[in-house]
Order: sequence, then C-alpha cells, then structure tokens
Amino acid sequence: MFPVCLQAQHPVTFFNQAESNAVKKDLARFPVLRTSYGEIRKEVDAWLGKDVDVPVPKDPAGGYTHDQHKANYTLMFNAGILYNLTGNPRYAEMVRTLFLKYATLNPTLKMHPQATSSSPGHLFWQALNDANWLVYTGMAYDLIYNSLSPADRKTIEAGAFKPEVDFITKDLKSWFNLIHNHGVWACAGVGIVGLATNNKDYVDMALYGSDKSGKSGFLAQMNGLFSPDGYYTEGPYYVRYAILPFYLFANALQHARPELGIFNYRGEILRKALLAGLQQTNTDGAFFPINDAMKEKDYTSNELVTAIDIAWEMYKGQDKGLLVVAKKQGHVLLNKGGASLAAALATTKNIPAGYPYKTVEYMDGVKGDEGGVSFLRSGSNDDLTTVIYKYTSHGLSHGHFDKLNISLYDKGHEILTDYGSVRFVGVEQKWGGRYLAENKTYASQTIAHSTIVVDERSQFDANEPASEKYHSEKLFSAISNPALQVIAAKEDHAYDGVQLQRTLYLLRLPNGKKLLTDIFLTRSSQEHQYDLPFQFDGQLISTSFKYKAAANSQEAMGKKNGYQFLWKEAEATVNDTLAQLTFLNNRTYYSISSLVQNKASIFLTRTGANDPDFNLRHEPALIFRRTGKDLSIVNVVEIHGDFDPVAEFSTNSHSSISSIQLLQQDEEFTIATITVDNKKLLIAQCNNNVSATVTHSAKGINWTGPFYVTYDNQPLH
Amino acid sequence: MFPVCLQAQHPVTFFNQAESNAVKKDLARFPVLRTSYGEIRKEVDAWLGKDVDVPVPKDPAGGYTHDQHKANYTLMFNAGILYNLTGNPRYAEMVRTLFLKYATLNPTLKMHPQATSSSPGHLFWQALNDANWLVYTGMAYDLIYNSLSPADRKTIEAGAFKPEVDFITKDLKSWFNLIHNHGVWACAGVGIVGLATNNKDYVDMALYGSDKSGKSGFLAQMNGLFSPDGYYTEGPYYVRYAILPFYLFANALQHARPELGIFNYRGEILRKALLAGLQQTNTDGAFFPINDAMKEKDYTSNELVTAIDIAWEMYKGQDKGLLVVAKKQGHVLLNKGGASLAAALATTKNIPAGYPYKTVEYMDGVKGDEGGVSFLRSGSNDDLTTVIYKYTSHGLSHGHFDKLNISLYDKGHEILTDYGSVRFVGVEQKWGGRYLAENKTYASQTIAHSTIVVDERSQFDANEPASEKYHSEKLFSAISNPALQVIAAKEDHAYDGVQLQRTLYLLRLPNGKKLLTDIFLTRSSQEHQYDLPFQFDGQLISTSFKYKAAANSQEAMGKKNGYQFLWKEAEATVNDTLAQLTFLNNRTYYSISSLVQNKASIFLTRTGANDPDFNLRHEPALIFRRTGKDLSIVNVVEIHGDFDPVAEFSTNSHSSISSIQLLQQDEEFTIATITVDNKKLLIAQCNNNVSATVTHSAKGINWTGPFYVTYDNQPLH
Repeated sequence: MFPVCLQAQHPVTFFNQAESNAVKKDLARFPVLRTSYGEIRKEVDAWLGKDVDVPVPKDPAGGYTHDQHKANYTLMFNAGILYNLTGNPRYAEMVRTLFLKYATLNPTLKMHPQATSSSPGHLFWQALNDANWLVYTGMAYDLIYNSLSPADRKTIEAGAFKPEVDFITKDLKSWFNLIHNHGVWACAGVGIVGLATNNKDYVDMALYGSDKSGKSGFLAQMNGLFSPDGYYTEGPYYVRYAILPFYLFANALQHARPELGIFNYRGEILRKALLAGLQQTNTDGAFFPINDAMKEKDYTSNELVTAIDIAWEMYKGQDKGLLVVAKKQGHVLLNKGGASLAAALATTKNIPAGYPYKTVEYMDGVKGDEGGVSFLRSGSNDDLTTVIYKYTSHGLSHGHFDKLNISLYDKGHEILTDYGSVRFVGVEQKWGGRYLAENKTYASQTIAHSTIVVDERSQFDANEPASEKYHSEKLFSAISNPALQVIAAKEDHAYDGVQLQRTLYLLRLPNGKKLLTDIFLTRSSQEHQYDLPFQFDGQLISTSFKYKAAANSQEAMGKKNGYQFLWKEAEATVNDTLAQLTFLNNRTYYSISSLVQNKASIFLTRTGANDPDFNLRHEPALIFRRTGKDLSIVNVVEIHGDFDPVAEFSTNSHSSISSIQLLQQDEEFTIATITVDNKKLLIAQCNNNVSATVTHSAKGINWTGPFYVTYDNQPLH
Repeated sequence: MFPVCLQAQHPVTFFNQAESNAVKKDLARFPVLRTSYGEIRKEVDAWLGKDVDVPVPKDPAGGYTHDQHKANYTLMFNAGILYNLTGNPRYAEMVRTLFLKYATLNPTLKMHPQATSSSPGHLFWQALNDANWLVYTGMAYDLIYNSLSPADRKTIEAGAFKPEVDFITKDLKSWFNLIHNHGVWACAGVGIVGLATNNKDYVDMALYGSDKSGKSGFLAQMNGLFSPDGYYTEGPYYVRYAILPFYLFANALQHARPELGIFNYRGEILRKALLAGLQQTNTDGAFFPINDAMKEKDYTSNELVTAIDIAWEMYKGQDKGLLVVAKKQGHVLLNKGGASLAAALATTKNIPAGYPYKTVEYMDGVKGDEGGVSFLRSGSNDDLTTVIYKYTSHGLSHGHFDKLNISLYDKGHEILTDYGSVRFVGVEQKWGGRYLAENKTYASQTIAHSTIVVDERSQFDANEPASEKYHSEKLFSAISNPALQVIAAKEDHAYDGVQLQRTLYLLRLPNGKKLLTDIFLTRSSQEHQYDLPFQFDGQLISTSFKYKAAANSQEAMGKKNGYQFLWKEAEATVNDTLAQLTFLNNRTYYSISSLVQNKASIFLTRTGANDPDFNLRHEPALIFRRTGKDLSIVNVVEIHGDFDPVAEFSTNSHSSISSIQLLQQDEEFTIATITVDNKKLLIAQCNNNVSATVTHSAKGINWTGPFYVTYDNQPLH
C-alpha cells in the first residue's frame, strides 16, 4: 500500500489552479479548444440565474427525473470548470445551489421506485448511475470548493455526499467491491469525492476496497480487468464505458497523489487499454460489438474524448493515432491535455484520414493466459478488411456464449455480423433503456453468432457460471505475412464430449482478391448435430443449391436456445456438393462457399419470430446443419465484384470458387484444395502438432510448421 | 417543320472545333476540369494499343458481352474527345478499329439470344441499349470523322450504323415512334448518327418520326412527355434517364442546327425539366422513388452531369443550385459547359452546402391538366422535411397504382416509404438486372403504398390501360405560409362507385414541432373495406393499442393484389379510440396517430412472404382496416424527440398528441380537433366548395376559403 497524505489544495481532481490558469490563456488560441469552451458556455449560461430542478427520483432511464439528474451532474461539473476559467462567482453559486438541494434530497432517499436491478440506486434506477453522479459532482464540488463557506461544505458533505457514499460502500458493499465496470465507476465516484472532500477514508476504500485490504478497489480493478496487453475482459463496448472512470480517477490521483504513479501502474496499463480499445473499432469509429454492445457507440463518445485528452497529457510523445481520433471528435476537455491536443490539431499538418489500424491479437485474462481475440486486417482505409476471431474467456455478466465466433467487416461495413445486444439505450418505452429479455434469450445465445451450435444447445447450456470457468485456447497464429494471416484456436469445454477447433486463413491472392478460408473441426466419440450459422448483412443474390422457401406461412426454427426467434425462410437438403450463397452488401458481393460431404441441411433464416414487443431487428442468416462425429468443415468467404447502382455497372457478381476438395481429413492433418479462378489454392494444416519447427509430409506435400498454403503452386506473399 | 440544311463540318455533335480549342486551353486551369480530363485519359490510355473485344452478343445485362459493348461505346466516345483535345491520332485509330469491327459484326446480327422484351435488341438484350450505343458511337464517329478516309466512312456508315438504324426505325418502328423514354433514346441515337454521318433522312426521322409527319419524333417527345412546368410523366427516376438523350441530342442540334432554337423550344422546357428533376430529390441527391425507381440513383449520376453541364452553357445566368450539384458531382464534361462550370466552381465563394429545395407543385399532362404531384417542404438543410403527395396520371408503363399516395422524408431519411421497384440493375443473377416479377405483383400494387386500398383490390384492378384513362384531380393548395401548407386532391375513378379525397396539412407549430395532418374521406353508396397502410422505415418503439403478435408461425396477409407478400406480424382490434404507433428512425421519433370511430382492425406487416427468390426487402407497415360507406379518417404523423445513442440521451420519445376528435363529418365539412401538447389544434375543412372566397360557418366557427386552422386559438404563421 502507498502512504496516504491528503492535501487541502483545491481544485485537484479535474485540474489544479496552475493548469486552469494555463488553459485560460490558450482558450482563444486554438480552434477546437475555443469551440469546446463555447459549447460549454452556451450550455451552462442558459441556466444561469434560473431555478434548476432537483426532482424526487421517480422515472426509469429515458424518463424525466432520470434525465434531469443526469443533466444536473453534467451542468454542475461544467459550471465548476467555468468558475475556475472565468472567475465568475455566478457559476460557483449555481453549483452551490444545486448541491444544497441535493443535500436536502439525498438523506431522504430510499430505493428508487423503478429499481429492478440487483444493484438498485437511490437517485437513479440503478446504482451505476448514482456512481456516475458521484464522479461528476465530486469534481464539481472540488472545482468550487474554495468558494464555499465552511458551513456549506459541512452541509453538502454530510447531506449530498455521505448518504450516497454510505449507500454504495455499505448497503451495496459487495457490488462496490466487484471487479467489474460497475465497480470501477463506484470506486472512482467514492475516490473522487474523497479527494474533493479531503476524506482519506473514502480514498482508501476507493483504492483498496471497502475493507481496505487491496483485494478489491481501484488498483485491484486495474490488475483484474485487463490482460497484460490491455484487453478488457468485457470487450470493447464496455472498455469504452469503463475507460472513463479509470481515466478520470487516475487523472485526479495524478494531481492529488502523484507519488502513486498511477499512469505507469502495471506497465502503463491505462495506455494499453485505451489503444486496445481504439484498435477494436471499425473504420467509422464504432466499437466492434463483442459481447453485449450497442453498435451505434463510437469513439466520438464523451468517454473517449475524456480518455484521449487525459492520455495525450499523461503519455507524452504518444500515438499519433490519437490525433486522428481527436480530429473526428471535434471537441476537447478544458484541461491541459485538451488544450495541448487542440494545439496539436491546429499545428499538425497531414493528420491521416483514418486511424492506423493493424492486425492485432489480444490475450484475455489477468495473466494473458485465458484465450483471447484476434483482429486480422488486410488492406487499409476504405478498402480495409477486418476478421474478428473470438476465443476469449466469458467476459463477465456481459459475455456471450460465442466461443470460436467470427465476424467480418469490409469497406467500412459489417458483413458477417454479430447481433450485439437487445437494448434501446435511454428509450423509456423499451423498459427504460435496460437490457431487454431477448438479450439473454437471443443475442447472447450461440445461435445468434457465427460459430457451431451442437445439438441445438448453446455453449455451456447458456450457464454463465459454467462458462466463466473456462476459456478457449489459442493454438497458434501467424500474422507477419499480409497475404497469409492464420489463427487457430480450440474449445474443449463448451459442449461435453465435443472438441471444437477452428482455423482461419485470411488470404490475399496475387490478383488482390481477398478470401477468408475457415476450417472448422469437430471431434467427438458420439454422433452430434452441428449447426454452423453465418450471420450476414445483405441482399441474397443467388445460391448454388435449390431450396424450398416459405410461401404463405412460415415457422420458427425451434422452441428454445435462441432458435425460437428465427423464422425459417427456406430449407434445402444437399448431398456431396459445393454449397454457395452470394449476397450483396452496399457495393460489393460476398460469397460463402462450403464443402458438403455426405448430407447437409441448409436453412435461410431471419430474426423476428416470437418477438411480441418488436425488440429485434430482422436479420438474415445462412445455417449449415450437419451430423456426424468428426467433421472437417471447410468454408470460404470470398469478397468479390463491384455493384455500382448509380453508374449501373455490376462486375464479377459470381463467386470465383468452383470446387473445394478434402484430400485428407484425420486426427493429424486436414488437407484441402480450393479452386479459385480456375487455379488451385492448397491448404495443408496440422490438427495436433502446432510446432513451428516440425516437418510434415502428407499427400506428397512436405512442409514445416502447423500449416502450408500455396496458390497456383506458389507461396502467397 | 423547320428547314433542313445539313452541314459537313465535323465535329458538330458533342462540341465543335472552336469549342474544343477553348476547352483545351482551360484543361490545366480549373481543378475539376483537370481531374475529369485525367480520369478519362486514365481510362482510355489503358486501352491504347490493345485489342479491344467486340464480342458476338450473348449475355443479358450484367453479363460479359453486355458490359463489353457498353464499355466500348463509352471508350469510343471518350477516345473521340481525347483525339480532339490532344490531336493524338492513336485515339482516332482506336475508335476507327472498333468501328471497323462493328461494321463487320452489326450486319450479321439478328435478335439477341436473351431478348425477352417487347422491344428486343441486336447488340443488347433490349433495343434501348442499342439506342444508347447509337447515341455514344454517333458522337464518337463525328469526333473522329475528319481522320477517316472516305472508304472507311463508307464502310462504317453502311456496316456499323445502317443495320442498327434500319432495325430501330423499321423493324421497331412503333417502338421508335413511342412518346416514352425509350423513344427519346431511339430518336437521339438516330438523330446524332444522322448529324455525324450527314444523313438528312436520319435526322428528319429523329426529329419528326419515322414517317416525318411530326406526330412522333424528338419534338413530339418534347411536347408530349412533359407538363408545361417540366414534370416528366414517368416520374423523377425516369426523367433522370431521359434527360440524357434529350440534352445530348439538343446539344448536337444546337451546334448543327442552331436555327431550331431547341433549348428555347416550348418555353425552355428542357430547363424546366432539369430543375423539376432536381427539386424531386432528397437532400442526399437521391431521386424520389415515384413509380418504378431504384432508390440508389442520385444526381451525381452521369446523366445529370451531362445535363447540368450542357444546361450551364445553354441557359446562362442560370440557377446557382446547379453549382451545388456540380460540386457534389465532382467531375464535368470536357466541353464548353463543363469548362465554364469548372471555372465557376473554382472561383465562386460560399457555394451552399445544400440544393435550394422549396415547396413545389408540378402539374401532370401535356396541358398540365392531368393531376400532379406536390412536394411540401418545411425547414432546410439537415432539418428539411418533405411530404410528397401524388395525384398524377398513370405515368406510362412505369406507373404505379398509387393515386393519393403520400411519402415523408425528414432529416435526409425516408420515413414514410415508397418501395420503389423490384429490380437489381445490372445484376446478372437477378434476371440480368431486368424488372423482376414482384415489381408488377407487389411494388406497383396499391397496398405497397400509403394510400387507401378498397376491398383488398388495387386501384383500377391494376389494369394499366384502365388507369391511363384517368388521373386524380387537385382540388386546391395553399403553400405560401410555411407554417401551414395545405393540399387537397380527389380520385373518383380508381374504384367503381367510391370517391376518395385526401387533404394534407403540413404544420409547423409555434414551438417548432412539425405535424402532418391527413384527412382521408371515402364516399360510397355501398359498404366497403378500406385499408390504409403507412409504410414506414424504423424500429417499432411502442403502440397505444394491444395486439396479438405472431409467435411460432405467421401467415401472409392475403392471396393476391400484393397482400400475398406481406407477413402478418401482429393484429389488433380496436374500438372508438386514438390508435398510436411510435417508431424510431435514426435519431428521431415518429408517431402515427389515427382516430378510430367504431371499430377498426390494425395490422403490423412486413414484406417477404411468397418471395422464393429473395427479391424483396423486408419492410414494415402499419395498416388500418375500417369498413363503412362514408368515412372521414383523420391521421396525424408527428415528428418528435431526439435519440442520441452515442451520448445516451433520449428526449420526447412519446407522442404529444393525446386526442383526436371529429366535431363534424358530413358532405359539407370535416371539423376535427387534435390535442397536441395539451393545446387544441383545430382544423375545419370544406369537402365540396373549395372556393377561396366563400365564407362558411359551422360549429360556431366562421371562416373563408376551403380550410381553417388554429392552434391554441391562434392562426399558425
């Protein structure tokens, strides 16, 4: 534990006096800073001299009282900043008046009337929002601290803060001590209030947990929520959310307790977390929807503005990619980092148009030994292709049962899709913006993804504690050759008695064509049914197989495990063939080709069945159903052609894959040939021995290492 | 008829020698001109010295031979331009070589093997594409005319052109003489070839029809296809297509036959047509999908580049809006108009971001007395709202059975939608890009729109000749007050014994809220079933009524007239109530409120049933079903609230309309009150007497003219 030595200097959480003075000087100098200052002035000045409502909590998210309390803490924080930057006492007075109202209200609060979560709130329906309130009002209090009389301080600290801090650290102690994004917010809130109120007890609980043992609290969260390379176990949507309290509390600690060296902690874990978060975005800045995630969230959100502006200051000489993001964000914090970033934006020439995306792999788990997720990338900017391959641990309460899942993005669009979550954030009519029932019953089930479902049951039978015990395992990857990127992983626990192994090859052929070859192995001593869905976004253009389509009526695919939400739009039975489906997404064609050995059923489905509240989007999937024990399923996803509806041109709308053959399929090797543009693509892979140095020989082919790929008898490069 | 005096000066169709010389001087001066020149150089130079294929026609649209012949005529035209601008004889040689190949091929051609249309082609599956070929190769020939030997000229004129011109003007004579966009292309093709080959006979046929009587041909088309105010009877998607041959042939005539004064013809009808076409676009430049239309087509298409560049030269001092469009197009023709526009783009400061959209009404019919279409607009730029109200004549073969249909656009998005057409232009797998069966069986049927369907039958029983005999009638409109725009029209022929009358009020309340109030009257001596669909784009958020949703299975809504394509997702029965549905589109909420008197059924549907080839998009609709004789149906479409998924704010997600009441409903008057934000909106309208000067008195209200509207007892302004 670090020594604690609280100081009475204020402000100290958001910025200190010297920093405030420096920012003040820059306000007019740099356009983005000037704009950001103007925005805040406009928002706050509209309320100067007006009576701002502090209503008795009543409504769920999206309702009046929820939004008002949310607006209030933002208003108080911004007014606090303006008080420091302008010296105008009216801003401090506005914040004080509001604090006095809260000091009257908060001691009267019991459980929120709309509280339905396991961590209910007082001011809001869930405690998480109360923690948000503490983070911002804590900073607001610190920002006007010097303007307050000792009596007011006493009233506010005892009335506005203490009931909330007590509630969170005592009534909700186990929640406060969670190693989870909620816990991060809770600790940041209590910690910032502690620094603002010179309350060592609060700060210690925030840093080391309610019992101050260090088993929980902020430092434990920095240790426990990230892998060593900065991957956040809940996924990018939630790192986006958690990064805010991490950075805000760390920023406050850096000012108040520089001896902690919080930004250097655990090998600059906060820097790694931010950069990992940014790499996990699409070219439009939207976070990849791994686990529970709203697809609209992108890196222009307030959370990322805050993190990037603080990181820019704390990690000097940093990633130029931050400038790219800051430029798209278009506004900055009114602190030293924001001012410095605004200066860099004004003076840096040739800021790239796109974030510097690259192929990255993140390990999951505190020690980096609990599987992980790979992002294979090919091309750049508007022609960037990204394959996401997930072989992580469960990802806490927001995890999905989707081990060995793949997603594909191309040219800025989602091609092989992940549903994300079933939720309408902030929409009162949709259960106050909470996660809807279909989030558990559909979106988190295995069938909602693009990975194998065994016997129509979800992985781990959708039992979260069971899933949390295990993680998939990466077997190997090879990502240094841009024309041939390979990643293999296996999953032995999701289904009793079934081993699943999936190897992806993201290939760029000499003519520039991109292919994703997908070899999915199943191993079991028993016969099982294996459903492999490809969730896709696009208009079906053609199939190589004949199907029977629903006509005047259609049925749901099943009764449970997510199948009940799928309409069966068409069904086919195929034998020993190459099954292909081509669809159009925006201006590009995509074909999924799959080798069918013996017999398979194929389903074309669409979400929307058993959805009485119209909570689901209606999205198509192609599902291959095979039965057997040990299957080697070879699929190819091909990116091809060009559709230009304005110029009315369409080229290469047909798949260039004319056959897939399995030359060998056994315990040791899978050897496949794929005929692409009438030339032979050969893939030989080792199914057991993934050593990079062992030499193999099969079917007249000799090679070293876990895989061997040629196209037209030449290696790819 | 005009005197004919052909001249032998070449080039004369695309530009003449003087114009070419002038453009040459400007090439390096203006960025857009330089870029456009560079693009064409790059395209054409890639083929210099190479053997360009002129294949025997075989494939439908989207297939190889189709695309190759299409690419060839563009290549020949562009190479012809470059020959003039550079003087490099290799360009002329490339064009000559291709022409000699066509001179060998064309005399051998019979009906295209994929010909399935009533106007089959030789080089292409349909003659329309052959006409495209004539337009561009005609200009190409003219551009290299001076480089050719008399022997080559003879070979090309007799071999490449004559078989095509003969085929079109003789074998397809009745098609050539059509007053229809195909006919425009045919005349432009034959006419341009006539000017290029000094063939008076061709030019005369092009101008005056194959019998040269003037009953058909280009001038008859200029008379017959537009209303006096420039509305093109097939709708904006097809004016976009027809405007190209109109402008290209007119441009050639202006050079070769200036005495015709073609651009002044019929009160500058070509200028009016272009500006009417541009007003019929959404803020993103996409043409409104009236009648058969592909929604992707926008004003950056080549056709509009051509028309705007020619118009800029021919109608000097013109619409500054053309600059807005030209800027978005980003390239220009290499002629005088293009050069002049490039200069204007380089030198004009503050080109507005958006086209200057305004409320416009176009009458349909040659005399402007066959109904029309109104575009009511409110707001501007990103906050522009557009209501489209269609009460036109049928619109020839591409017309839909959708009289009194409404569409709504808001903030750049389509809110109340029109399906457009069922077609994948250029996609070989989708029947070569032709109109698919569902275009007739679904998209053109009444139920695919947002207008009343009587007894589950389409208007005119979807009989095109029957529909072409009639048109709807505008009763009155009042569009000068931006806060209160009103338009009323009636339709007496679509259903025997049923009179339909619909009046729209686009309102802007004092607080800025926009409402579309819709009063739809039915009058009949017999009882009928009236279905009123609202096709919408968005996620259902809530309804005021309870419904029974499909669970494990769902059924199609019907067997015919388009109903067979609708899945019945939910069904409700309601009595004497205000029925409301709220949906979310992007970041705005929209509520449809409808007064239900007595009993109504409500259906929530989605397209996709009976669609074995997956040709349809899956789009929702809200359908109100009422029975009776004389109904006054009052609906309100409300634009409200704000959903910000990035900042996680949602405001005003509930409709502000709490009641609709009908105070009077009879032959003479409809008087309704609508409670909006707890204040009374009163609408009184005359159902028979639409005189602007007659004074009325009912329910204690006195007013003059066909309608009277107050909000909170005040007039709107």
